[in-house]
Amino acid sequence: MGEESKKWVLTVTAQTPTNIAVIKYWGKRDENLILPINDSISVTLDPEHLCTTTSVAVSPSFDQDCMWLNGKEFSLAGGRYQRCLKEIRSRACDYVDEKKGIKITKKEWENLHVHIASYNNFPTAAGLASSAAGFACLVFALAKLMNVKDDLGTLSSIARQGSGSACRSLYGGFAKWIMGKNDNGSDSIAVQLADEKHWDDLVIVIAVVSSRQKETSSTTGMRETVETSMLIQHRAKEVVPKRIVEMEEAIKNRDFPSFSRLACADSNQFHAVCLDTLPPIFYMNDTIISCVEKWNRSEESPQVAYTFDAGPNAVLIARNRKAAALLLQRLLFFFPPHSDADLSSYVIGDKSILQDAGIKDMKDVAALSPPPEVSDKIPAQQYKGDVSYFICTRPGKGPVVLCDESKALLNPETGYPK
Amino acid sequence: MGEESKKWVLTVTAQTPTNIAVIKYWGKRDENLILPINDSISVTLDPEHLCTTTSVAVSPSFDQDCMWLNGKEFSLAGGRYQRCLKEIRSRACDYVDEKKGIKITKKEWENLHVHIASYNNFPTAAGLASSAAGFACLVFALAKLMNVKDDLGTLSSIARQGSGSACRSLYGGFAKWIMGKNDNGSDSIAVQLADEKHWDDLVIVIAVVSSRQKETSSTTGMRETVETSMLIQHRAKEVVPKRIVEMEEAIKNRDFPSFSRLACADSNQFHAVCLDTLPPIFYMNDTIISCVEKWNRSEESPQVAYTFDAGPNAVLIARNRKAAALLLQRLLFFFPPHSDADLSSYVIGDKSILQDAGIKDMKDVAALSPPPEVSDKIPAQQYKGDVSYFICTRPGKGPVVLCDESKALLNPETGYPK
Repeated sequence: MGEESKKWVLTVTAQTPTNIAVIKYWGKRDENLILPINDSISVTLDPEHLCTTTSVAVSPSFDQDCMWLNGKEFSLAGGRYQRCLKEIRSRACDYVDEKKGIKITKKEWENLHVHIASYNNFPTAAGLASSAAGFACLVFALAKLMNVKDDLGTLSSIARQGSGSACRSLYGGFAKWIMGKNDNGSDSIAVQLADEKHWDDLVIVIAVVSSRQKETSSTTGMRETVETSMLIQHRAKEVVPKRIVEMEEAIKNRDFPSFSRLACADSNQFHAVCLDTLPPIFYMNDTIISCVEKWNRSEESPQVAYTFDAGPNAVLIARNRKAAALLLQRLLFFFPPHSDADLSSYVIGDKSILQDAGIKDMKDVAALSPPPEVSDKIPAQQYKGDVSYFICTRPGKGPVVLCDESKALLNPETGYPK
Repeated sequence: MGEESKKWVLTVTAQTPTNIAVIKYWGKRDENLILPINDSISVTLDPEHLCTTTSVAVSPSFDQDCMWLNGKEFSLAGGRYQRCLKEIRSRACDYVDEKKGIKITKKEWENLHVHIASYNNFPTAAGLASSAAGFACLVFALAKLMNVKDDLGTLSSIARQGSGSACRSLYGGFAKWIMGKNDNGSDSIAVQLADEKHWDDLVIVIAVVSSRQKETSSTTGMRETVETSMLIQHRAKEVVPKRIVEMEEAIKNRDFPSFSRLACADSNQFHAVCLDTLPPIFYMNDTIISCVEKWNRSEESPQVAYTFDAGPNAVLIARNRKAAALLLQRLLFFFPPHSDADLSSYVIGDKSILQDAGIKDMKDVAALSPPPEVSDKIPAQQYKGDVSYFICTRPGKGPVVLCDESKALLNPETGYPK
């Protein structure tokens, strides 16, 4: 590359979804390589409502690797970022753009610096697996930029080294993270079980709960569980392998009763091993579980599955739009917003579910009556203000490259944030 | 017995303590005989603060078995009462009182009816193991009345058939319920590990929590856990046996750090298997646990152990009076009463701990400052009204016969409630 070619900037922008585990990942057998003690299965959430967008750029004029997260400069010094960058660089291939007169050899990628700008379309702090979408997007975008030819499985094993659950965000629909056996982690990859069209009845409602205090980070939490829980190894070795087989079958057959039973039981067991940790870890919110359990039990077969990650937010998966509308009525009855809230910011995402539920404004929310499964004898308890907002979404697609220049976060001329 | 002797009434009054398990009983292998899936260990609570008093009477003039609980007539039709009555009657021995001219042969006991009056000196509904103290007292009093000569181990196996944990209430201090192996339950008995004088430094504070709703009964809860939890068998077979050995050793050596570690871990694991139940069972109160965990971690060694039974009440065991006073300051800071409460009904039992804590009235409570382990950065959250009241007590003695006639609940002339 000559001096005059220092001006060129090559960019790629990608968008990657977040995901929610329905058979949980909790516990590592290798902290550095992020190798889990059991397989896990997740549903990918529609990136229209929850996703990370990442632009990456390379230019001979950059003198160091830089990152901006949600507009703010962000250090890449952490080991997890360094490992992902190194792994991707080692797989870079020759790149030629004859029109622009750019040629980068496999060898040259090692000495070129990158700029990375990343943005979540949802609050980072809300505990909605932002690191999963973030690392998946970083790895996917860099792989496209550097002309990496490895398959998604290999990319998933790189994303895994950034954040374990990130490996599952490389696929749409339903993904499985296979724990693998090798000490170097080469076989600890994610695979797709079914794409997002396979089971498109499902509707997902996320209750973002008003956080009470700083929770235990999942990295710390799962380390303490592995070190102190007397139940975690039994879960990982005896319980999860059977559930993985059953969950794959349930997804294949779109068998909602089995899907719901397994997802709820596994979420509860994950929180059980958290409680069996020294000191015990408390993540979830029992009022939402009780509301769903009571409703499911009053119906012939379950209408909604619930699952909680390492935080108090509930992810509720309704069997279809009708169940989702009935769910939203219940949620808005039990968890109404503070009086000054407006509906359009209390229920976000796919608002068409609100229409199905016959709810147009706050007056309709106030007029909701207790659902029939609530006993007449005991007045229904309501939890005003416990939920910050609801996001209505659905299973969604995997990572994509965004060609629309307006979506890019880096200026294509300078390689710096727009 | 001639017609003229129809007038005589023979009575016995006994008092029996309640107990709190520190290695938990949860799960039966036989529902009818009440045989557990693991051993358990408990501390007996001082009957001065928590006990059942039961008077039993026999007379040829009684035409049926009758019971009064806390002053109200109460049906003895339940299988558990019938089983205890039958077992005790089958062990009755000849009784002679030459002064009163009463003679009852072993055979005659089978046809004589009994009157039973029972009273708890604490609220029955407060979830404080009233059935444990109640059945222990019923069996103990009837055994005395009917001149049963079997040892306490045998009586414990009878009380066990009324309510599992009742078998441990036949001893003061520390008791172990040995699960046994026999199908007929003959070796599922309780034994004393140490009496109440062995470790008399311990101070116990019970937080009676303002109940939110009807909780799952322990009978139903443990049945559902055994039927649906994937972790309970591992707990019973692999985890508890080791903890039993360690807890016996800790009690023997008055080793508070080990006692505290085991009691807290086992309470948390019991609640973990409750959460692993379908539908999940929520019993405990995480705010009290967090308060104790934070304090213990800020000290060189633990000051207080916590344990929760099948309900939200916390039982806190302080290593000595000094720790108990510091505990009470913390509890009253984090869980102050409603403004209209008075201190004498908010802290009951052994009020001398209040004096040690330097708290004389509600003004002193209001003046409490956050404990040093609370970070200055995050303002301490307080939970006014979450606790109904506190009971200060200690490890206590086992069942006793009360000879003071004024303590009897049945009129010695008529055999009916006073």
